[in-house]
Amino acid sequence: MKPLETCTVGIVGLGLMGGAIALALRGEGIISAAGRILAYDRNDDTLTSAQAQGIIDEGMKDPKSMLGCCDLVFLCLSPRALLGFMESQMPAFQAGALITDIAGIKGTIVAAMERTLRDDLDFIPGHPMAGSELGGLAHAKSCRFHGKNYILTPLKRNKPENLAFLKTLIYRMGFARITETTAQDHDRKIAFTSQLCHVIAAALIDCEADAAITRFGGGSFEDLTRIAMLNAPMWTELFIENQEELLRRIEQFEGSLDTLKSLIASGARSELETRLHAVRERRAAMA
Amino acid sequence: MKPLETCTVGIVGLGLMGGAIALALRGEGIISAAGRILAYDRNDDTLTSAQAQGIIDEGMKDPKSMLGCCDLVFLCLSPRALLGFMESQMPAFQAGALITDIAGIKGTIVAAMERTLRDDLDFIPGHPMAGSELGGLAHAKSCRFHGKNYILTPLKRNKPENLAFLKTLIYRMGFARITETTAQDHDRKIAFTSQLCHVIAAALIDCEADAAITRFGGGSFEDLTRIAMLNAPMWTELFIENQEELLRRIEQFEGSLDTLKSLIASGARSELETRLHAVRERRAAMA
Repeated sequence: MKPLETCTVGIVGLGLMGGAIALALRGEGIISAAGRILAYDRNDDTLTSAQAQGIIDEGMKDPKSMLGCCDLVFLCLSPRALLGFMESQMPAFQAGALITDIAGIKGTIVAAMERTLRDDLDFIPGHPMAGSELGGLAHAKSCRFHGKNYILTPLKRNKPENLAFLKTLIYRMGFARITETTAQDHDRKIAFTSQLCHVIAAALIDCEADAAITRFGGGSFEDLTRIAMLNAPMWTELFIENQEELLRRIEQFEGSLDTLKSLIASGARSELETRLHAVRERRAAMA
Repeated sequence: MKPLETCTVGIVGLGLMGGAIALALRGEGIISAAGRILAYDRNDDTLTSAQAQGIIDEGMKDPKSMLGCCDLVFLCLSPRALLGFMESQMPAFQAGALITDIAGIKGTIVAAMERTLRDDLDFIPGHPMAGSELGGLAHAKSCRFHGKNYILTPLKRNKPENLAFLKTLIYRMGFARITETTAQDHDRKIAFTSQLCHVIAAALIDCEADAAITRFGGGSFEDLTRIAMLNAPMWTELFIENQEELLRRIEQFEGSLDTLKSLIASGARSELETRLHAVRERRAAMA
């Protein structure tokens, strides 16, 4: 790879995360004036706006012409869109290009890339754990990377120097911690920390129709349902793509909920208090 | 009532909320140098520390001597401690005193006060919707009132001028919105916005033992489980005191969770997306 500063970076999909990555690449001084930040998005207006604001150097209406000159490509698409894009655009990438993604599930992506990636390309699957319930380029500035987690699920064939290169870039964007693991482990854990939480937030809102209930809010309800402002197509895809792990997690959660419900129903003060105390201790150990 | 500025205010229980109220009374300039802020707490060290920090004017080791000179009393106790305190200390209150509380359930308190309150006292049940998972006087400063909700569940016998007096005080402490309702309505709604949320947060932590799971956190998990750092005795009491409403809310939530689970399990993309979209719209209307 070239020196990071002088790379031509291509961003495919200039939504919240694509926009936030572009802002970090420029804002943190990672890509210098000798490098370039290009972007492709199916929405021309997004590209025009991003270029006018100086978020990117150039918006490209044709992905082929962009991919042909990029040293590094961030695919900021949902899993199915990503797989479709890779299938149709595989021949267009520059030889030796490093490609990474941001999708919230990794199993299907890793499997497809192990099978279909061109020999002269390197694809390192990634998942920046920094989203926002506010989607789109307009909110990219509100998506902060500092102090956040980043997960990488490398392919067997990834070149060590490319992995080191990407990790340097991730830290320079502000992320605090990179965890390398398998796609299966990622999907199992993300089913809990992310997808289950979104299902719970959605269920909470689903079961209460009174908008004035917020007069009785004191922070807990607001915190638990912030993420109920979800991008419905994207989360539908993530939930169903990771169906098996997510259903297992929902059932585990239902089991714990049922235990607490039984203790409340039977008025088992002492057992309930012991269980809540153990929860507090466990949560404290996670902080 | 005297002018608010010159009142002697007594705070019973100088934990997070009692401490935060004392700080607001002084910090917002509500109680002037001509008034006094007294406190009683079963822990002498808490009183000594609060007095040394200037949070209160004087810590009282004997509740009787404090109650005898207070125009306004804030009972900052859990529901059962409150009922025990009122039963044992009822004769000690100054004639004409205005009493209020902060307990998270109101039904049992309203019922007891309607029945047992001395004729020459006024008790207005209240619930400031501003807590923190960090308890105790030491964290009182982190408990902010600005922009928060406050619920009042007046007794039939409350004097209108006392109600107006308390509402003025609440707004001056920084709260943004006061809702007056019945104890039953309060308990029904709080079962949803507060207690159910705490049960869910506890269940989420209960079903995952791996402390390193936080490496996979991106904000959702942290937000949903912040309140799992719960005060076990207090929440045990709140859950069991409001058992009936809370169990009804848990079951409603389980119903919605089950619907979402079924849609995920059957891979019903279009129905799931429609449901998630409706959730988003409903949450947006609540903001």
